Amino acid sequence: MKIIRTVKEMKIYCRKLHEDKKTIGFVPTMGYLHDGHVSLMNEARKHADSLIISSFVNPLQFGPDEDYSSYPRDEAKDVETAEKHGAEALFIPPVAEMYPSTLGTKVSVIEGTDVLCGESRPGHFDGVATVVLKLFEIIKPDIAVFGMKDAQQTAILKRMVEDFNLDVEIVPAPIVREADGLALSSRNVNLTSAERAEAPALYRILGEAKKLIESSELTAGEETEQWVINQLQQTLSAEIDYVQMLTFPELKPPASAEAEWIIAAAVQYQNARLIDNITKS
Amino acid sequence: MKIIRTVKEMKIYCRKLHEDKKTIGFVPTMGYLHDGHVSLMNEARKHADSLIISSFVNPLQFGPDEDYSSYPRDEAKDVETAEKHGAEALFIPPVAEMYPSTLGTKVSVIEGTDVLCGESRPGHFDGVATVVLKLFEIIKPDIAVFGMKDAQQTAILKRMVEDFNLDVEIVPAPIVREADGLALSSRNVNLTSAERAEAPALYRILGEAKKLIESSELTAGEETEQWVINQLQQTLSAEIDYVQMLTFPELKPPASAEAEWIIAAAVQYQNARLIDNITKS
Repeated sequence: MKIIRTVKEMKIYCRKLHEDKKTIGFVPTMGYLHDGHVSLMNEARKHADSLIISSFVNPLQFGPDEDYSSYPRDEAKDVETAEKHGAEALFIPPVAEMYPSTLGTKVSVIEGTDVLCGESRPGHFDGVATVVLKLFEIIKPDIAVFGMKDAQQTAILKRMVEDFNLDVEIVPAPIVREADGLALSSRNVNLTSAERAEAPALYRILGEAKKLIESSELTAGEETEQWVINQLQQTLSAEIDYVQMLTFPELKPPASAEAEWIIAAAVQYQNARLIDNITKS
Repeated sequence: MKIIRTVKEMKIYCRKLHEDKKTIGFVPTMGYLHDGHVSLMNEARKHADSLIISSFVNPLQFGPDEDYSSYPRDEAKDVETAEKHGAEALFIPPVAEMYPSTLGTKVSVIEGTDVLCGESRPGHFDGVATVVLKLFEIIKPDIAVFGMKDAQQTAILKRMVEDFNLDVEIVPAPIVREADGLALSSRNVNLTSAERAEAPALYRILGEAKKLIESSELTAGEETEQWVINQLQQTLSAEIDYVQMLTFPELKPPASAEAEWIIAAAVQYQNARLIDNITKS
């Protein structure tokens, strides 16, 4: 597996793959690769000849009070994981390579940011969309895989691809969970052991809400949101950031039990913010 | 020459050119092609094998009180001009083809918009950058030519190409003028005959300011700006929108006679807004 650290070399490498008539499957990550990322890699390999992974903790998508500096990093493990799971190249650019000077332009997300993480993390999705556009321009993937754990991110990036006429297909991949139900996240490592012990309740409660909607014991929308909030407050020591039930993939209120929906939640622990969601399926 | 009206067909056409190892030179226009555009086409042909022109009056870059509906259009003449000057294809998409639904994302210009046309036309350069990014994604040009008449636009788009790691080179082309000095513009057709008669003074006064700077009779910066404003007020019936002297291509104050500079001006007539500029050379 090739490790590439400059934009120029990455461009040359990917142009060569295309010249050789190989399709590129791309998995952009912020590194600290876990089994969730591995499932994205496996998904990408189903759709394309060559698998390219990027590992870049993107400062642009972190707010001033967020965990950019404490975001976990482990390059040696990332190299090992990417190689083990069939990546042809791993792109690990330094910040100065991705942002050599102040940006004069950026991608602005103008719809779908007034809900969920967009509301609590102003500017976050602008930072995500900007870096993903840059990575797409550098790598020119045929398909790119994004996890449904970040459902809002996946929806926004699908929209960006349409808006800008990009030649890449966004492939969503299902959430991967620990045996006890906790969604895999690089941030889980920043949970205390007590927090880690209680955290699976987040998904369990979302699952219970789903059942209660299916049995018509809960009405889709505000009643469900309030029920989930109450359950989370009784169960978790974390601060609840949001619980929202929206249409999917439009991410608009009001949700109904009949149409496609998502219930998404974010909770803030001492040193880790966890998000999770459940969809109608 | 091929006339293409859909994004899909345009993408297929340009992918084929690249497969045939032809480089693409692109001139994006808002149509109503004049000799200024012809000079851009000639420039593009110097740098690339195939010349592609787009003609699209982009609603996104017009403010609510601006001249979107009265912007001149003449498709038959555009087809004739593009063909005559060696275009291989002319892309004329309907608005619904470029903007099939509300945008969820756009390009925001975050630097270089607090001066010149950016100050008087809020959102204008976001609209320009967004449509140009879309056109670049559709056409995938190797080079794209932009006129120095829109010096700020050219500077901003160069920045966008760097910021987003795009694989296209922005080639600036000099301003083309009528015999009497008036910069060519599709909007000139909306001048009354009296306005048309006096309008060349705009460039003449910019030229005089340049000479006075070179002979140290005018100090670069505010003194020059004020001198140009006075001259324009005495000579033109138009309303002065701005006169600014800035560094070039950074477009920042303060300008000095020694470093590279630009003096740019915009004036508003009854039905036509004219812009012009002069650089240190």
